[in-house]
Formats: sequence, structure tokens, C-alpha cells
Amino acid sequence: MPKLDLAAIPQTNATGYPAPFDAAVAERWYRRLAPVAGLTLMGASHVTLNPGAFSSQRHWHRGQDELVVMIEGEAVLIDDTGETRVGPGDVLAFPAGDTNGHHLHNRSDAPCVFVAISAGSREADSGEYPDIDMVFDAEGYARKDGTRYDAHRIP
Amino acid sequence: MPKLDLAAIPQTNATGYPAPFDAAVAERWYRRLAPVAGLTLMGASHVTLNPGAFSSQRHWHRGQDELVVMIEGEAVLIDDTGETRVGPGDVLAFPAGDTNGHHLHNRSDAPCVFVAISAGSREADSGEYPDIDMVFDAEGYARKDGTRYDAHRIP
Repeated sequence: MPKLDLAAIPQTNATGYPAPFDAAVAERWYRRLAPVAGLTLMGASHVTLNPGAFSSQRHWHRGQDELVVMIEGEAVLIDDTGETRVGPGDVLAFPAGDTNGHHLHNRSDAPCVFVAISAGSREADSGEYPDIDMVFDAEGYARKDGTRYDAHRIP
Repeated sequence: MPKLDLAAIPQTNATGYPAPFDAAVAERWYRRLAPVAGLTLMGASHVTLNPGAFSSQRHWHRGQDELVVMIEGEAVLIDDTGETRVGPGDVLAFPAGDTNGHHLHNRSDAPCVFVAISAGSREADSGEYPDIDMVFDAEGYARKDGTRYDAHRIP
């Protein structure tokens, strides 16, 4: 069915982030939509941030475009330009290669819901986390001196 | 800015469809987001269907995944399985190569707003319109006997 039965798709809060960077996303609950829907040319996740949760560590991608469509609730977009309130109907775009690290923080007392879409080669992707000693590639996570964390990205 | 200033992006109702197939989308007003946002690996449009408008002629793509995130108002999704009401927060997915032709029809008396995202090679894409004598490819539109319409796809 083209209309996805969201309630029937299990939610997970799994993350590949090594400790202590995993704590920020412990209350990020998401459904991977692409595998269920048969999409092979984009990634898509339906994400609920419970109060206090971040969407990710602040990051940017070398090889993937990202788009976020806000559905419900409010969050604060944090990037190099500062803080911006976002809510239902807002659309956020993060082009591949743009080094403006970004994430969303739910500072409200209600859940915040959005759909995040990505396109571009996941295997060739890499990126950085400006605020912490971490970078990523297709394999997983490393420190900025190149030594690896014992941590792998969630497929 | 990652948060797109939607109101500052001009809307258009342009279509490449040849007459009489253009009439169904005359009240489909859209903003192309990818060029403004610098996205190169996906397409994205912010679409308003005024009452009575269709999102497109009923169609499917060989080479592009499509995803629709409903933001505001109501529409009826029409595909091979029948008719399905959709509204805010619903997510619709149309995998590349799935021959289940689809479109949205706003049968309400208020505008319906959604974001449509596509990924995959636009140049290598083609597809069909099950209900009318038309197919498409990167160049434009043709009848099912292969003769071309004098009509080109909007970039």
C-alpha cells in the first residue's frame, strides 16, 4: 500500500553512537520507512523526539542530501548560524557537502514528529560532528585523530 | 538557511502536459525546493492542491522513488487498489518500477498541502499513465504508439 501504516511499523531507539554520545538520542524513536515501502533510491525515517531528545549529534554529510519535513510539535534547529524554532509544515534542507553541522532539539514538553529523507550513496558517505571528537564513514565512527571507536552505524 | 523560507519561493502551476491532460493540474501550485536549497541528489516540491486539483495524471516511474509527506488538508489517493483518504501526517511511498499508477485528488473545499520528494536519475527515468494515451521519458511525452506529443517535461 502506498499509504504507509505507520502504527504497524515497529519503532526503535537504536543508535550506533559510542558512549557517551548515545545519551542525547536515547529518546529519539524512529521507524525506518524505506525497507518497508520498497524504496531503494532514498532513505526515509519517521522520527519522534520525546521531550529533551536530540535528532542526532550535530553533524553534516559529504555524500548525502537530507530533507526534513516537520509534522507535529516543535523543535529547535541548531546549526552554525544559531538557533531556529521549527514546527509543523516547516521544511529543512541540508545539501551534501555543506559543512553547516545541524541537529534538532526538542525543548518542549510534548513529542515532536518529523520525516527525514536522505539521498545519495550511503556506502560512499562520510561526515563530521563539529561539537565532539567524532567523524563517521560507511563503517562506523572514529575520533578526529583517525583511531576508531568500537561502534558501527545502524543499517 | 536550512529552514526554507517557503513564502519567499515563487509558486508556479506550470506543467509540460499536452492538452487536454494539463487541465487536471491547473490548480496544482508548487515550489521547487531542491534548486533553492542546493540539493542535487534528490528532487523536492512543496505542493498546494486547490479544491478540485489533481497532483498529476495517474502515473508511475521506472527509475525514481517517490515519497509524499502530507502536511495540511485532505486528499484522496487513487491507485490500482482503489481510493484512500489521506491527511496531515500521512506518508505515501511509491517505489521505482512499481507499476501501481497513482495520484492525489483534492475533493475537499480547502487547499491540501504536501511535500513530494524524488530520488534516482531523472535523465534515465521513464514511466506510464495507465488512464490516458500517454507515456513519458526524460525528453517529454508520447502516445502509447510511440508518436511524440509536442510537449516537454518541466525541468
